[in-house]
Amino acid sequence: MDPISRLAEYFRDFPGIGPRQAKRFVYYLLTRNAGTLDEISRLILEIKKQVHICSRCFRFFNAQNAAVGNVCPICADKDRDQSILMVVSKDADFEAIEKAHVHHGLYFILGGTVPILEKNPEQRIRSRELMNRLSDDVSIKELVLSLSATPDGEHTADVIRSLAKDIVAERSIRVTVLGRGLSTGSELEYADSDTIKSAFNNRI
Amino acid sequence: MDPISRLAEYFRDFPGIGPRQAKRFVYYLLTRNAGTLDEISRLILEIKKQVHICSRCFRFFNAQNAAVGNVCPICADKDRDQSILMVVSKDADFEAIEKAHVHHGLYFILGGTVPILEKNPEQRIRSRELMNRLSDDVSIKELVLSLSATPDGEHTADVIRSLAKDIVAERSIRVTVLGRGLSTGSELEYADSDTIKSAFNNRI
Amino acid sequence: MDPISRLAEYFRDFPGIGPRQAKRFVYYLLTRNAGTLDEISRLILEIKKQVHICSRCFRFFNAQNAAVGNVCPICADKDRDQSILMVVSKDADFEAIEKAHVHHGLYFILGGTVPILEKNPEQRIRSRELMNRLSDDVSIKELVLSLSATPDGEHTADVIRSLAKDIVAERSIRVTVLGRGLSTGSELEYADSDTIKSAFNNRI
Amino acid sequence: MDPISRLAEYFRDFPGIGPRQAKRFVYYLLTRNAGTLDEISRLILEIKKQVHICSRCFRFFNAQNAAVGNVCPICADKDRDQSILMVVSKDADFEAIEKAHVHHGLYFILGGTVPILEKNPEQRIRSRELMNRLSDDVSIKELVLSLSATPDGEHTADVIRSLAKDIVAERSIRVTVLGRGLSTGSELEYADSDTIKSAFNNRI
Repeated sequence: MDPISRLAEYFRDFPGIGPRQAKRFVYYLLTRNAGTLDEISRLILEIKKQVHICSRCFRFFNAQNAAVGNVCPICADKDRDQSILMVVSKDADFEAIEKAHVHHGLYFILGGTVPILEKNPEQRIRSRELMNRLSDDVSIKELVLSLSATPDGEHTADVIRSLAKDIVAERSIRVTVLGRGLSTGSELEYADSDTIKSAFNNRI
Repeated sequence: MDPISRLAEYFRDFPGIGPRQAKRFVYYLLTRNAGTLDEISRLILEIKKQVHICSRCFRFFNAQNAAVGNVCPICADKDRDQSILMVVSKDADFEAIEKAHVHHGLYFILGGTVPILEKNPEQRIRSRELMNRLSDDVSIKELVLSLSATPDGEHTADVIRSLAKDIVAERSIRVTVLGRGLSTGSELEYADSDTIKSAFNNRI
Repeated sequence: MDPISRLAEYFRDFPGIGPRQAKRFVYYLLTRNAGTLDEISRLILEIKKQVHICSRCFRFFNAQNAAVGNVCPICADKDRDQSILMVVSKDADFEAIEKAHVHHGLYFILGGTVPILEKNPEQRIRSRELMNRLSDDVSIKELVLSLSATPDGEHTADVIRSLAKDIVAERSIRVTVLGRGLSTGSELEYADSDTIKSAFNNRI
Repeated sequence: MDPISRLAEYFRDFPGIGPRQAKRFVYYLLTRNAGTLDEISRLILEIKKQVHICSRCFRFFNAQNAAVGNVCPICADKDRDQSILMVVSKDADFEAIEKAHVHHGLYFILGGTVPILEKNPEQRIRSRELMNRLSDDVSIKELVLSLSATPDGEHTADVIRSLAKDIVAERSIRVTVLGRGLSTGSELEYADSDTIKSAFNNRI
């Protein structure tokens, strides 16, 4: 296979990319200057070295900022509220939360969600790692399950509640979920009954 | 103009209908039997007689169910919680709320929203009627502003708060708005910071 | 059922209309003045009387313009080219063709298309009426099958070709279909091979 | 800036990619194994070396297949019809045409289109190179302008016709454009008048 098609095949595996856009990516690269291609090539090669997974929260972070034990700056930050641990599904969710500047505690990246009907839910997410963290980290007083308001997100929250039932009871950890309601841009006319119920009950 | 085009012009004014679909409506009607056309024609003629506007909440309702003084069944229902008055923009919003079976108080239909930059906000909504209701109805303890989480909806809530400031202060009426948060189907990754803030602060 | 819901049920059956928009139509009508409702109601009632189906081409037309034998103005127009008969599926297609001012012959409205796998193709369209027309009308020299470039459209053209095979052979009628090619707005990159083939072979 | 953001910035410049998807690309790469990243990195670095621009038609092609003078296999193929030169805007258009197996002549890649109102049309496309080709290549008898049926595509065809006017007259080269008509999937009801006109005039 020719190099255009070979590179296009890799781009096809990128999230949300079809065969046509994959090929357009290659043609786009062919019109870039050598310096840009060198830099992209180098960054792709280096990224795994430069980006580490935090040994505490499992998020990706810049290795240059690693604290002792390969811990990310947020996990190493003693000024963050050590009593609130927020569970999110993936790094993009973590970023959305940080951008809101509302959660000042710590994080735990599940690394996925548990689809309904999944037979081995524990294999889809970092469930063992989360249980260890809840057992070991005596400062945790609240576990915030920050999952999407989707069937998979809700099911994942249920799975975690069930797995963590004994530990949180024993350690008196409060388990919470994000509040439901009208999200920005929602029109009342098209809101479903569950959303309206939550919005009414959470009225302020 | 021929009758097909004349009727199509009326359909064009229907909400969300363009010239092509308007014409398709006419062709559709031409394929119906005479009985169906008679019935549709009769219902359109009768609807204003059979449907009244409630003199208290200003919603449309079946005239056969009118209570004394042209009042709708909900306004006439003494079992509804007389202390909570919910303000909605239009009948479709009222229906979405009723379907959720969560609000057991009374309603007030504004008849519109106030766009930002509107110079005469009071002319866009039933503001005078709402102020009269707040003055006259001594049983009201809470005013729930149930408006869409859109710029117009938020501005309309602000306008009402401002207009009602003195009355609600004098009469000790609590003014609330629907809670914000993740609405059903929202993915955390795509949620805006305002929604995340509310969802975090309303976590349960 | 209340009159709002009853009328909304009729609107739900209009092409392309869901339950929510149907209800919004009723609320829209409730805000119109009595004169408008009277006029819409009257037009719906009158439309079947005022609009006839042409006995030659089967299209809907304003009855006031009917020629002898309930024939539409186009079929009655001796200046139209009597040698070209264009078959279209429905009135909206006829209108699109007339708007292009390119066909100066006569029309025949099939009243539908024949879906692939249909067991009784002749019942879906006015096939018998078309065959009669081809037999009776000795002035026809060309039959233009103006059908959509969709699987159903192509299948309908095949069905007509097959049904009319003997008549057109006997009467030396030429059977044509609309040319394929790039339609306005088509980007070459996204064009399928069939379209490109036709566009190349029809290059001018 | 951290390596995740730095690589994401490069992905943002890819055609059709926004900031969120750019970041998701980086996270996707972080989950790949080292071998895959090595291979993608290497291909990006090598692509400019392995892919050449044909000195005759200006399309990208696998350098391993280069003929004498850095000419692509199609330009070097004596079995292709040397009398028909097809002008396309970009490589993706060339690919769409080749896939249709209908054009057996040669190609010329313009490298762009000329937007309407462009003051220096000759700088947007390889106009000088095309004129040279028309002057030098005595075997050309037909120039097929294969451009999209869009305003820019049509304008580009006009620009080329105008620039090449004298050469094609002198050399008796026929200039053609792709035929218009219903493209696959087009519904007659929604076809514009220009498309219908062409489809009717090209009926077969």
